Order: sequence, then C-alpha cells, then structure tokens
Amino acid sequence: MGLTISRIEDLLQAETGEVISFAGGTPHVGDFPLEQLSDVLAQGIERGDLAYGPSRGHPALLGALRDLLTREGLQIEPERLLVTGGAMQGLDLIFRLTLAPGEPVYVEDPTYSDALDALRLTEARVVAMPMDEHGVRVGELPALAAQRGPPRLIYTMPTFQNPTGVTLAGDRRGELVEFAASVGARLVEDDPYGRFRFAGSPLPPLVALGPEVVGVRSLSKVIAPGLRLGYLIAPEPLVSELTAALTTTSICIGGLVQRLAARFIDSGAIEEHLARLTGVFAQRRDTMLAALEERLAGSGVRWSTPEGGMYMWLTLPGGLDGETLLHAALQEGVAVVPGSVFAPCSGHRESVRLCFASVQSAAIPEGVQRLGAAVERSLA
Amino acid sequence: MGLTISRIEDLLQAETGEVISFAGGTPHVGDFPLEQLSDVLAQGIERGDLAYGPSRGHPALLGALRDLLTREGLQIEPERLLVTGGAMQGLDLIFRLTLAPGEPVYVEDPTYSDALDALRLTEARVVAMPMDEHGVRVGELPALAAQRGPPRLIYTMPTFQNPTGVTLAGDRRGELVEFAASVGARLVEDDPYGRFRFAGSPLPPLVALGPEVVGVRSLSKVIAPGLRLGYLIAPEPLVSELTAALTTTSICIGGLVQRLAARFIDSGAIEEHLARLTGVFAQRRDTMLAALEERLAGSGVRWSTPEGGMYMWLTLPGGLDGETLLHAALQEGVAVVPGSVFAPCSGHRESVRLCFASVQSAAIPEGVQRLGAAVERSLA
Repeated sequence: MGLTISRIEDLLQAETGEVISFAGGTPHVGDFPLEQLSDVLAQGIERGDLAYGPSRGHPALLGALRDLLTREGLQIEPERLLVTGGAMQGLDLIFRLTLAPGEPVYVEDPTYSDALDALRLTEARVVAMPMDEHGVRVGELPALAAQRGPPRLIYTMPTFQNPTGVTLAGDRRGELVEFAASVGARLVEDDPYGRFRFAGSPLPPLVALGPEVVGVRSLSKVIAPGLRLGYLIAPEPLVSELTAALTTTSICIGGLVQRLAARFIDSGAIEEHLARLTGVFAQRRDTMLAALEERLAGSGVRWSTPEGGMYMWLTLPGGLDGETLLHAALQEGVAVVPGSVFAPCSGHRESVRLCFASVQSAAIPEGVQRLGAAVERSLA
Repeated sequence: MGLTISRIEDLLQAETGEVISFAGGTPHVGDFPLEQLSDVLAQGIERGDLAYGPSRGHPALLGALRDLLTREGLQIEPERLLVTGGAMQGLDLIFRLTLAPGEPVYVEDPTYSDALDALRLTEARVVAMPMDEHGVRVGELPALAAQRGPPRLIYTMPTFQNPTGVTLAGDRRGELVEFAASVGARLVEDDPYGRFRFAGSPLPPLVALGPEVVGVRSLSKVIAPGLRLGYLIAPEPLVSELTAALTTTSICIGGLVQRLAARFIDSGAIEEHLARLTGVFAQRRDTMLAALEERLAGSGVRWSTPEGGMYMWLTLPGGLDGETLLHAALQEGVAVVPGSVFAPCSGHRESVRLCFASVQSAAIPEGVQRLGAAVERSLA
C-alpha cells in the first residue's frame, strides 16, 4: 500500500499554516446538532442504561430506528435490525462473518478506503467491478464472474458513492440484486449519504429490493460521528449470527449513547437536522462547482456533478498524478485525497476526491483558488 | 459447546418468578455512580467531541488514565495507552493481531468464557494451564510447552480471577513474566477487578513486572459497563499496530463517552466511588460466606474465600453436575453459572460460579437459602 488516509491526516497535522481541507469525510464540526443533543442530554441518564444491554441493541434505539425507517417509507421488522459501533463495525462484522481467505469479494473501482482495509484483514480476494457515471456496470458482472470466480460477497455504495459521488442507476439496482441472488453472493449495501439528495429523483435503496440484501447504515453523518453508532439491516437468521459476533468483539454497544440517539430520533429533531444539513451541503456543492468553473475551466481538470452526498471526483489532465497534486496543494494550503487511496487494486492515480460537505461555504472559493494554483504549479 | 452465558441469560429471561441472580458479572445496577456521572454530564457537550477523534483515544481520557495509573503507583507513558470499546474489544484486538489459526494460546483452567469465545474466532489452539489455589502453576509450564508446543500468547487474569476468584501468588508473578519472555510469548494480563481488594496485601500487576506485558483494562466495573470503555497498556510499537487494527474495526471510540469518563476520573470521583464499591463488595462477600456456612456446611459443597473481586467458586459434592444444579436452582428462584461454561476444553462440571457483587446484601441470604434447597433437591 502507498498513501493512506491516516498518512494524509499526518501530513495535515504537520502543516503549520491554515489549511483548507477538502480531504475530510464528515460534516463540518459546526454542523453537528450540538444544541439539540444538549437538550436531549438534559433529560438525564437512566440508571439501566449504565448496565450492559442486549447485544442486538437498546430496545429504545431499535424502536426509534424502525420508526425512522417507516417514516422514510421502508418497512423493516425490528428483528431485522442490529445496532453497531458505527457503520465501520457493521462492515467489519459482516466481512468477518462472510469471507474466508482467498474467497472473491467484488467492490466498486474506486471504493471506500476503510472498507478496503477491513477486507484486507479477511485476506479475501478483492475483485474490482467496472463503473461508469451510472455506477457499477452490472451487465458485465456475469462475464467477470466467469473470468475471476463468482463473488462470495459484493460490497457496494450505490447512492452518492464514496469517493466518486456517483449513483447507481434505477434499472441497474434490480439487476444487481438479481445478479447477487443468481450467484449466491451476499450483497452488502453501504448507504451513509443517501439522505442527502439535492437533485434528481429518489431511488430505492437496495435493501428495499430484496429481503436478502444486507444494509450497512451510519448515524455518523446524520447525527454525529462522536456517538459511534450505526446499524445493520439483515435477514433475521443473519442478525442472530451478527449479534453473536458482536458479543465476542464488544459484548454490546453503550447504553448511554444509544439512549441519547433514540431520544434525538424520537423527538423528530433528526428530520429537522437532516433537512437543514441537506440544504447546507447543496449550497456548498454549488459553491464548489461555481468556483471550479471559474478557476479551473480550460485547465484540463474535469469534475463530477453529484446529485447528493458529500463528494466530488476530479480527473486530472494528462500526466498529472493525484499524489503529486496533494503535495503541491498542501504547499498552497489546501488538502485533497489522491484517487489511488481508493483503488482496490491499482490505478486512479489521475484523480482526486474533494469533500465539499466538510468545509463551510465561505472558505470554499479560496480553497479552490489554492487548488488551481497547485494544479498550475504541478503542470508547470 | 454446551451451555453458554447467553443461554443462561435466556433461561433467566424466561423465568416468571422473582429470581435472585448470582449469575451476573457486574456491580448491581444500584451501584453505578449515577449522580456523579450526571454532575459531569451537566458540564455539557463539547462540539469537538462529536467529531471523529484520534483512533488511539481522546487526549483528555489518555491523560486522565495516565494520571489515575500514576496515583495508583504505576508509571505508564501515555504513548503506551490505547482506549478501547470495553476490555472485550481490547481482548479481541490483541487476539486477532497475535494469533493465527492453529497457534497455541495458553489460558487458565477455568477461564473467562467471553475470552474463550473470542479465542475460538481466531481458530488458535487453546491449551489449558493447570491451576491451584495460588493461581497458575507456573512451574509446570516448561513441561507443558515441551508437550503441547510453546505458547504464542498467554491469557491470564492473575488477580481475583473470573470465575474462581483465585489470585496468582506474588512469587509466581515474576516467574510467569520470565516464562513468557523465555519462550517469546505475548503475555496478556486481564485485570478488571484488581482494584477491589478486601483482604491480604496488594500484589503488583504483571504490567509492572515487564515492559512487554500487555495489560487489558476495563472501566466497566470501576465506572459503568454502559459506557463501553476500556484501555490497553502495551509496548509502543504494539500500540501502533493495535491502533491501526482498531481503525479498521471501528475508526475510533466515541468522543462523548471518552470526555465523560475523563471528567469523572479527573474530578477524583472515581477514587471515592471505588472506595465505596470495595466496601460494599466486601460486605456482600462476607454476607454470602456467612449464609453459605449457615445453610450449606455439611452438605459437601465447598467454596473459595476470595480476597477481592466479584466471584466465589463452589465445588459440588460427588456426582452433582453444575448444569443440573442450575436448572434446580432456577426452579427455586436463584441463578448461578455452571463451571462448564468456563472450561477451555472440558471439565468443571462439578462447579458453579457465584457473583456476590451484583446482588444487594439484603437479598443474599435468601438467595443462598434457595441454592441450598436446590442442592438438596438435586442430590435427592
């Protein structure tokens, strides 16, 4: 492995000047619902929440999540839910439970770097699925299976993908679910950003298209990462296996934060917060698009226009390498993530990921100015 | 595997009457420092604690733990500490990082059942170390190594062990550290109860005897399980590896609960709480010893007299099986944990574990009365 997200964080820490970071992966710290969470905390602690709770999750949070999903149009029996310590633990559990060393796991190309790290721990054989601007090219998967072996697990982020911002087209969604079923693969849908849609029509999540699909969900972006809460949607027998695996890795998830999240969701504050955040992210995306147009039109740099989520994917002009650009960018006082970090095998050296959601609008034009200067300096 | 702790919990849930449970593994819910934690929570949330934090731990908690250890007479550089999601995550991380399938791991016989479950996931080869009333018979380990292969890892709970309550004698402590070093084994000391001493002289924890010893620590018993916080003490290079492994399983531990624990520790409330709890546990142990003496003297049942911690180990008279006793006990309205649950390989069928710490003193005599009736009924 070459550059990693942690290494980029080290580089950022080492910077002495004021860096505008498009390398983040969460809302801006100013976006977190501090006041609403404080209100909820002011309701006090319940003694029982200080004890160990059920490994599958606090009944209050399981109920709140079921109701939240129902309000969003998804009917999920509460027995199909499992609370996890962030979506990352959900990924780790489902990967560990499913994959043996050498078994083929299909991932998008590029894909989420932390998921790649977790997959590497299983020693599964990572196979890259081809993508275009409508997501995975599902029609090519049977040929891929014939060539590289059918997948034991398919890991996908179909909506506003990390890192490209791309969304899997509506017609391909059912096809992907069918393909997974036809080869007996476990289909894992990671959907941390689906609620942040600015444009286009909503598409059904994969979990709505097949009862066997495993949904990995995060509360990090929709409430706050510092709670370390997420959840899984899975068939009931699998939930039992996942619960047993969670027990041996952490016994249960903390009752205090689960109660806090349950109260936040039950109060309806989450819908207000999400509506506000979606508006803010849309404005930041537009600000970034306008700044890129103004500063980088004609430079040979191309960018995606995501319909939601947090990320934009830049393709660099001939010969310019994302890692080279990162170093030049840091000297100019702006940070990006080189595309190579997200490569399941190799490649994507000519790309970088920009997060528009983690920087306040006022700072975005200046960040893009600096990025433009870094591009020119690198090309010179 | 036969009976498990979860299965016992299911049995307990299924009981309709009022069961006095000596099958627990935490302080009583009434013991948790609700008021002190509420006071700390009333100080409010800090915005930064809602973001992702450093994977190794929140600087505030790492500092608080270092100071706490110093006050307890243990000088540990903060770089040797790693915050985990409970001691269970610490065990899971160190086991996963150290053990490959088939490699020998030495454990006490009997030992902590959840640790056994986590070890089974690694597919390491579990080897039972012989014990007596002074803990592991360290002198026999070289012969065991010659016979069964030298250990890659040794897992031990030397102080007020779960489940027996036994403490490793002072002279054997240095010998165990030396043995581990001589065979190149990673020595893992799990010490959740060491602070609860009622009698006898304090003994140094193994981490004080060798810089290579890995200490697994829990805040579940000393603050509350519902925080899901623990920490590891390890050599610095290993801390880096463990931090990387933690990142791929959960990114980081939640900032909110880490801040809460840090404030609780810094306020000095933890020392007051521990002093109070130790007194309470001692009283409960004495109450249980007196009740056992009164009700079961002459029955053939024998019990240990632990100098601290939370557990007592009962040896049953000829032919009586712990699982049989559990079922009879539940009918009488009292719960225990059969010894077989803690067996690394097999055995301990003639024993049961009683937790005296999780039941308030007033209920203990009645619980022991019921246990006595269950013993008589089972022997009849």
